[in-house]
Amino acid sequence: MDSQTLLERFSAGDPRALARAITWAESGHPAGAELLRSLRGRGNSRVVGLTGSPGAGKSTLTDRLIEEARKRGERVAVLAVDPSSPFTGGAILGDRIRMMRHHQDSGVFIRSLASRGALGGLAGAVVGALALLEAFGFERIFVETVGVGQSEVDIARVADTTVLVLTPAAGDAVQAFKAGVMEIADVFVVNKFDLPGGERVIQELKTTLELAPARPGGWKPPVLSAVGSRGEGIAELLDAMDQHYAHLKEHGLLEGGRLERARFEVESVIQEWGRRRTREGQDLIAQVAHGELTPEAAAARLLGNPELSR
Amino acid sequence: MDSQTLLERFSAGDPRALARAITWAESGHPAGAELLRSLRGRGNSRVVGLTGSPGAGKSTLTDRLIEEARKRGERVAVLAVDPSSPFTGGAILGDRIRMMRHHQDSGVFIRSLASRGALGGLAGAVVGALALLEAFGFERIFVETVGVGQSEVDIARVADTTVLVLTPAAGDAVQAFKAGVMEIADVFVVNKFDLPGGERVIQELKTTLELAPARPGGWKPPVLSAVGSRGEGIAELLDAMDQHYAHLKEHGLLEGGRLERARFEVESVIQEWGRRRTREGQDLIAQVAHGELTPEAAAARLLGNPELSR
Repeated sequence: MDSQTLLERFSAGDPRALARAITWAESGHPAGAELLRSLRGRGNSRVVGLTGSPGAGKSTLTDRLIEEARKRGERVAVLAVDPSSPFTGGAILGDRIRMMRHHQDSGVFIRSLASRGALGGLAGAVVGALALLEAFGFERIFVETVGVGQSEVDIARVADTTVLVLTPAAGDAVQAFKAGVMEIADVFVVNKFDLPGGERVIQELKTTLELAPARPGGWKPPVLSAVGSRGEGIAELLDAMDQHYAHLKEHGLLEGGRLERARFEVESVIQEWGRRRTREGQDLIAQVAHGELTPEAAAARLLGNPELSR
Repeated sequence: MDSQTLLERFSAGDPRALARAITWAESGHPAGAELLRSLRGRGNSRVVGLTGSPGAGKSTLTDRLIEEARKRGERVAVLAVDPSSPFTGGAILGDRIRMMRHHQDSGVFIRSLASRGALGGLAGAVVGALALLEAFGFERIFVETVGVGQSEVDIARVADTTVLVLTPAAGDAVQAFKAGVMEIADVFVVNKFDLPGGERVIQELKTTLELAPARPGGWKPPVLSAVGSRGEGIAELLDAMDQHYAHLKEHGLLEGGRLERARFEVESVIQEWGRRRTREGQDLIAQVAHGELTPEAAAARLLGNPELSR
């Protein structure tokens, strides 16, 4: 398929064209870049990032959120971001199989993306996929990541609303606090609330949040509970996401979020160039290792602009 | 203090000169870069990275490892890497207070570094500090990170030996597996082994490791146990680190590790430039957000080399 045909089918709403476009964008296919260029900026989705430790039940929760959003008549897309490890990829994908029950519903699109390069880094590919899903016309996009450090922060940079999923397990709140993810979440939900300890985690979260610095526009992150496996607390969770989105809109904060996403995308491009060029420039790297060249001078030469290191 | 004086005191073994040099390197002080240039490549330390979830007891373990290495007559440095969050910094530093009992011992140097910029990303500053500690003559350097995704992988890129610290908590092995850190660790240790469940975690780890791809030189990662709070299993853990180092040496793998560290350092420089220049180039970022410019074209212009996006 050439990119003109793809663009036509994409614009006509063919989900196979969308899937192909994402593959092109993900693989760095030149036609993918062209397509992205012509589609970028179209559409107007609410992008919700879901993050949390492995085992917190994010996939089950996402599955239920799809169901609820569909009841409300929204077209929904899910981007599931996996760390790029042949050794672990399978295990994570396995968790997501249950979401596939929505496969027959044309108002739902689910896609896994392996973040290439650094583990946990959301590839620039994710932002590309996001732009495509947005242009395709989804009203709601969930971006789900395995909750490892870097990706949690990245999620906050691409999503309008970031949800941190916790469990009643002892110390879950403390761990989130230590890992520095407390301040990037806009909504907190204690999933698996039928297990013992849930109330305590909610109290810990609330106490901690009282000490937190003020959020833009004075947003107070709600702390909710849910039982994903039984579908409990899902409507309230989706409501909280909508309240946050309304808050962003009301305080003129949406545009800033879009700028931050674009900045993240440009940074990702630069980072990827860094990865590629340091791999290709082994001679310069050896000179750095042996103390014959500074890292800055090597970086400037790899990027073809000696001015950079001055 | 000017950089010539600092260099003299540094070379004379004054720990205050070392502390100052690290501060300069960390803050991007020009004299720091100059000092690094003149010192890089000196020394020959064994660099051990310690990683694992928050709460796994890494600081206690490190404290005991310092003790054991000192018994063996080694000079020891510790780099504790914290995510750069004013909201969490205090909590993590608090854990490390007990290490300060070594403060009076001139053969021990302990330093916390806040990884600036992205959470979890080991700042290029860490590699700079590492080069300084190495040049200062420490035989052993422990780099301890809070176990959030990105930093775990980064740790493996700067350390000769990477140790993953787990606990007997149910699912700890599975979570490590999911987070993709299994394949980057050279030594596994189940800490807090006096708690129930330790034997099971060890068995899970061993089973998983049997399925893992072969390591360079055929290294078989050992799975150890320890009780940091009581000092149990510490000598065996240090022995395992030494066995891994001997393995690297025997198979000619040390040089490759040094090249990887240099590559990581150059990548960090490029990444930092990306962060800085996207912050300064708000006009270009706005054009990307509104679909008027591709991220690649913006990146190339920010780096001052139009050729980059071709």
